[in-house]
Amino acid sequence: MPQTTPLIDLTPDQQIRLDRQMEFLREMDKLKSVLRGTKLINKSRRENSAEHSWHIMLYAAVLAEHAGPDVDIARVLRMLLIHDIVEIDAGDAPIHGHVDHAAMELKEAAAADRLFNLLPADQARAFRALWDEFEAAKTPDAQFAKAIDRTQPPVGNLHSGGGSWIEYNVTMDQIDTRVGVPINRGAPVLWAWLHPLLSNFFAKR
Amino acid sequence: MPQTTPLIDLTPDQQIRLDRQMEFLREMDKLKSVLRGTKLINKSRRENSAEHSWHIMLYAAVLAEHAGPDVDIARVLRMLLIHDIVEIDAGDAPIHGHVDHAAMELKEAAAADRLFNLLPADQARAFRALWDEFEAAKTPDAQFAKAIDRTQPPVGNLHSGGGSWIEYNVTMDQIDTRVGVPINRGAPVLWAWLHPLLSNFFAKR
Repeated sequence: MPQTTPLIDLTPDQQIRLDRQMEFLREMDKLKSVLRGTKLINKSRRENSAEHSWHIMLYAAVLAEHAGPDVDIARVLRMLLIHDIVEIDAGDAPIHGHVDHAAMELKEAAAADRLFNLLPADQARAFRALWDEFEAAKTPDAQFAKAIDRTQPPVGNLHSGGGSWIEYNVTMDQIDTRVGVPINRGAPVLWAWLHPLLSNFFAKR
Repeated sequence: MPQTTPLIDLTPDQQIRLDRQMEFLREMDKLKSVLRGTKLINKSRRENSAEHSWHIMLYAAVLAEHAGPDVDIARVLRMLLIHDIVEIDAGDAPIHGHVDHAAMELKEAAAADRLFNLLPADQARAFRALWDEFEAAKTPDAQFAKAIDRTQPPVGNLHSGGGSWIEYNVTMDQIDTRVGVPINRGAPVLWAWLHPLLSNFFAKR
């Protein structure tokens, strides 16, 4: 195999780290089988959490100019990259469904313990800290990331005639609380764009 | 709706930019319906290009330490985020399938013209430049991104008993050329880890 020789020699530490990193990355394949409440815009099927994660990272990259000056988009992208991986063990809790939030938090914390610890210890700590920051939603990066996470589903639902809103019988008041509050906190420009479209949609129902 | 008032006022320029940005982001939903040659590790279905894009971004973030010192991982992530969006119009060309590469390049260039130009002009130029850089595979960032893009499918196939290799009747020589060369160029440490596993797998076939 002349094209790729000579192979370099891995150090024992590189071998050990790569074995763990690849085990984690293989396990992550399961996020592609976690289904969300929302459907694709073409209504063909439910969206899964892996493709959702890609889509909101694209939202964050494209909409970066609408973030506050203290938001670091590269960190936001890393947060969004891992924000849903706990769903591999804990499943997705649809925003408009009936969920026991305390029980869900316990399940997600246990999932984070198992999944991040597949990585080498230093990476497990760094990724877990980023996930904890996202969940706490206190920092500008986490608040913008949360706002972006809440923006993608309504943009799709508006385009597909209501999507999961119809199924869950959602009202504008519920949208305002569950979607409007976190978007307005992290990205008021996005809520100012989205709010009139949502008001108009729900006024016609 | 007291929680989210007062709404801020958008400038006319913000309104115009957001209309275009959101149109682009909605159009991107279609990448979730572009199917690749590879299957999920659990073999339940083919992988789509949106969830693949998420997965390789996670590969890049976790494997960043194995990149050369001149690689900027934040740029690599942005490249991987958009690297496959042209498939919305051009479709996916399976690496082990029979593809007219010249015709595919034309289709992908036309797709890039249409899709990136949904964005405001400044963003269209910036995203297109990043995609062109990835395609050209000349810079350290693009070469690492290409290496990562080639690493995820064999890691999955090794774990699921061969996956698309069986379907396409792939040999180790073909793997070496199509997978080994780009991985070894952009991330020799990853190829040194992967090569023995691949040699062992194909020796047993």
